[in-house]
Amino acid sequence: MSQAKVQSAITPTREQDYAEWFQQVVKAADMAENSPVRGCMVIKPWGYAIWENIQRQLDERIKKSGHENAYFPLFIPLSYLEKEAEHVEGFAKECAVITHHRLEEKNGRLVPTGELEEPLIVRPTSETIIGESFSRWVESYRDLPLLINQWANVVRWEMRPRIFLRTTEFLWQEGHTVHSTAQEALDETLRMLEMYREFVENVLALPVIIGEKSPGERFPGAVSTYTLEMMMQDRKALQGGTSHYLGQNFAKASNIRFSNKAGQVEYGFTTSWGITTRLIGGMIMCHGDDDGLRMPPRIAAKQIVIIPVVPKPEMEDEVWAYAEKIASSLQEVQYAGRPLSVWIDKRDKRGGEKNWEWIKKGVPLRIEVGPRDIEKQSVIVYRRDKPHKEKLSIQIEQIPTESLRLLEEIQSALYQQAKKFRDGNIRRDIHTFDEMKSFFTPSNLDKPEIHGGFVLAKWCGEEGTEKMLDELKVSIRCLPMHQSGTQGHCILTGKPATLDAIFAKSY
Amino acid sequence: MSQAKVQSAITPTREQDYAEWFQQVVKAADMAENSPVRGCMVIKPWGYAIWENIQRQLDERIKKSGHENAYFPLFIPLSYLEKEAEHVEGFAKECAVITHHRLEEKNGRLVPTGELEEPLIVRPTSETIIGESFSRWVESYRDLPLLINQWANVVRWEMRPRIFLRTTEFLWQEGHTVHSTAQEALDETLRMLEMYREFVENVLALPVIIGEKSPGERFPGAVSTYTLEMMMQDRKALQGGTSHYLGQNFAKASNIRFSNKAGQVEYGFTTSWGITTRLIGGMIMCHGDDDGLRMPPRIAAKQIVIIPVVPKPEMEDEVWAYAEKIASSLQEVQYAGRPLSVWIDKRDKRGGEKNWEWIKKGVPLRIEVGPRDIEKQSVIVYRRDKPHKEKLSIQIEQIPTESLRLLEEIQSALYQQAKKFRDGNIRRDIHTFDEMKSFFTPSNLDKPEIHGGFVLAKWCGEEGTEKMLDELKVSIRCLPMHQSGTQGHCILTGKPATLDAIFAKSY
Repeated sequence: MSQAKVQSAITPTREQDYAEWFQQVVKAADMAENSPVRGCMVIKPWGYAIWENIQRQLDERIKKSGHENAYFPLFIPLSYLEKEAEHVEGFAKECAVITHHRLEEKNGRLVPTGELEEPLIVRPTSETIIGESFSRWVESYRDLPLLINQWANVVRWEMRPRIFLRTTEFLWQEGHTVHSTAQEALDETLRMLEMYREFVENVLALPVIIGEKSPGERFPGAVSTYTLEMMMQDRKALQGGTSHYLGQNFAKASNIRFSNKAGQVEYGFTTSWGITTRLIGGMIMCHGDDDGLRMPPRIAAKQIVIIPVVPKPEMEDEVWAYAEKIASSLQEVQYAGRPLSVWIDKRDKRGGEKNWEWIKKGVPLRIEVGPRDIEKQSVIVYRRDKPHKEKLSIQIEQIPTESLRLLEEIQSALYQQAKKFRDGNIRRDIHTFDEMKSFFTPSNLDKPEIHGGFVLAKWCGEEGTEKMLDELKVSIRCLPMHQSGTQGHCILTGKPATLDAIFAKSY
Repeated sequence: MSQAKVQSAITPTREQDYAEWFQQVVKAADMAENSPVRGCMVIKPWGYAIWENIQRQLDERIKKSGHENAYFPLFIPLSYLEKEAEHVEGFAKECAVITHHRLEEKNGRLVPTGELEEPLIVRPTSETIIGESFSRWVESYRDLPLLINQWANVVRWEMRPRIFLRTTEFLWQEGHTVHSTAQEALDETLRMLEMYREFVENVLALPVIIGEKSPGERFPGAVSTYTLEMMMQDRKALQGGTSHYLGQNFAKASNIRFSNKAGQVEYGFTTSWGITTRLIGGMIMCHGDDDGLRMPPRIAAKQIVIIPVVPKPEMEDEVWAYAEKIASSLQEVQYAGRPLSVWIDKRDKRGGEKNWEWIKKGVPLRIEVGPRDIEKQSVIVYRRDKPHKEKLSIQIEQIPTESLRLLEEIQSALYQQAKKFRDGNIRRDIHTFDEMKSFFTPSNLDKPEIHGGFVLAKWCGEEGTEKMLDELKVSIRCLPMHQSGTQGHCILTGKPATLDAIFAKSY
């Protein structure tokens, strides 16, 4: 592979080995690490700060749309999982099972004792345990809609774990609601999908395609599943969140019933919807470059780092005071619902070292201040979305307003870059299974890492036809909400078809 | 028992059956409920909102004091627990053990399969799993102090669970830090104790006695444990939080080493400290009265509820508009770091019913508005800390400032009431074991529910002497930080002693 001799901070580059590049970005940015517990990660402060920002800004939206937070047990009795036939099928295969509640020393080793009468599983999702509470909370139509959300950890045993993207334990929020009519529940499902879309696009700067999942990709037990699909820089899809219309399936399994206005007893209609720490993985994979992480300003752990340049020790006091003056003026500014997060890097390290550290950590704006800047009453500003030597000089009195403007420019630039990349990699000219097969099969002459993309093509919607995609390791990502309504032929069966579907490899 | 004929909203009253009164207050306020998973509770929105307020206000303090949040695995390999001898002794007895990672159907039932090579336990506390990360994060004295906090769920199997106070799963924060010297680690331990004291007294309005635990009550593996002890209305003690100085015990168990300035490799000195959802239980038990919950305004789920009184349907629009005008003026006011939480109760229920609901739920201020109030351009205000018929009239333009003043008055009143009760029930005149025995042994002639209190007496500090207290079901709650320094005789052994100790029954 012929490569330009531009040095990059991350080895390998995206082009050389995308999967390994991702691991190295996570490491260089000090966001997370694998733990000794297989499949479980440790989220380090720089990564967790992003999760806290996601929580804060999404929680606001969840509450504004009328939901209340609550907390339900971590453990689910085995028999609860069995209540919904498809659900157990989908989740029993990969869960942590608690069988004992005590350890005792025997021959110098601890061994499990106190066997439970009924094993418990660590929640992989909470429909069944929350349903049990809901069955007691709901009696009359007056109790509806019931709109509840939970922030929690969940566990799904992973055979091929991957940091942030697929971990045995992950953090998420799960909304669970009950409604008196099917229409109202479906409306809620779509309202939450739209809430996610707005949040993911506007805050994480990740362009998404929203749509419905095909039956083969549905949440186990759902009537319909809606999804946000994003394209990573290796042109694979990442599912960014889902919203499920559950009909009366779980209401029947959990006995959630209410008496309607006419006094008749009916089963409720339920929904559930969630996003996870996986979104952080998507943010890294979508925005990162060969120098490391690039954080969208609205979700950044820190928006601005100030690097004081002190050529002689006796200048330190003056330079630090100048840096603090600038930091104070910035901290008075509100951004994304709270004061700008600004940090002065006074550590005893060389300037270049500091600079590269913050580049790798993806801080949107770096501000350099030294004696010459004090003289000119200005600062030098570097944008993370621009080449790392490109700089701007800003007069001191303009720093707060200019910083805000630049942050919003970066936010928008990251979104536009990602959107342009995605839109340029959605193929609309692939119409047969053979064409699709060759599109998704890496040839040795090509770059295997960046082969493929999204194929937007027709699908007949017939159950079972999706199975053809298994050999390509491709799946239907969604049937986009915006359907063209045109006629064509199913890319799988050749039959007449009107449905538009997105086909892609995925994480 | 002769009882005045004052009706109360909660049956039984505190005097009749304090334990049952507590359960009934939790139920009447709709804060939490038992779940079908033994020992695990469901925290309902009204209870969870209080936890969110605790999180928000304590998290601010944790961050301001230099700590960063991170997240570590839920599961701990069995062998990790064995690394610290005292620790395993203390925690192995009551934990959830995961032995399998899969369920399979056999004869129509799900059974655990996929046995793990090494069982995992669900974290009862995270010293050992966090220590594993710290051993990799810490290399040099430059990496110290390492100041980390985690908000998480933990599990300790409970044989006698009690909602909020002792549940198998509970929510907490656990701080974990590493320092280069013993002194610095001890300072941190006490600094966090003081952070808790300030928070619990100023925000939860719970007066605490801070002090060191006696050896028999120490955290398993700690060198010293410091505690916040509170008195409930049945005069029993509740431990409100702990801060542990761990010396090098866990650093040795987890191999947390650093090279000091001289280039020598040393073990670090660690601390850990935590508060839990139990504090909500303490808040209920300490402030509640026979009409239900009384929430300190600074932690309240809602500070103010406005109840519109609509005598005739055609007046509804006007009354609601008036209520909304008042709510808007209140929502502009900042209180305890965010806008006042105000809610207009427009539900289709009778005024009296609404009133009692909010009394039981402990809302600090209730504002009633009706046609007569509109005429007078005023409102009627009821304080939860006053008899429920006592009312105040406030002119509309004074509502925001007066509400703030009243909320702070209530905050202070709840604290003062609790402090007065506690101080009145600390006995300093009990000097011998026989006297203590009779003090803590309910006589049939007395009121058994309110027998006892705190005994402040001398203790010789000799190991093993604490065991004498077991027969009384009493323990040393702490050796208060403020020691009198006077000489006396140990209440247990009669030997000369200078240590002041608090003896009490406890939750």
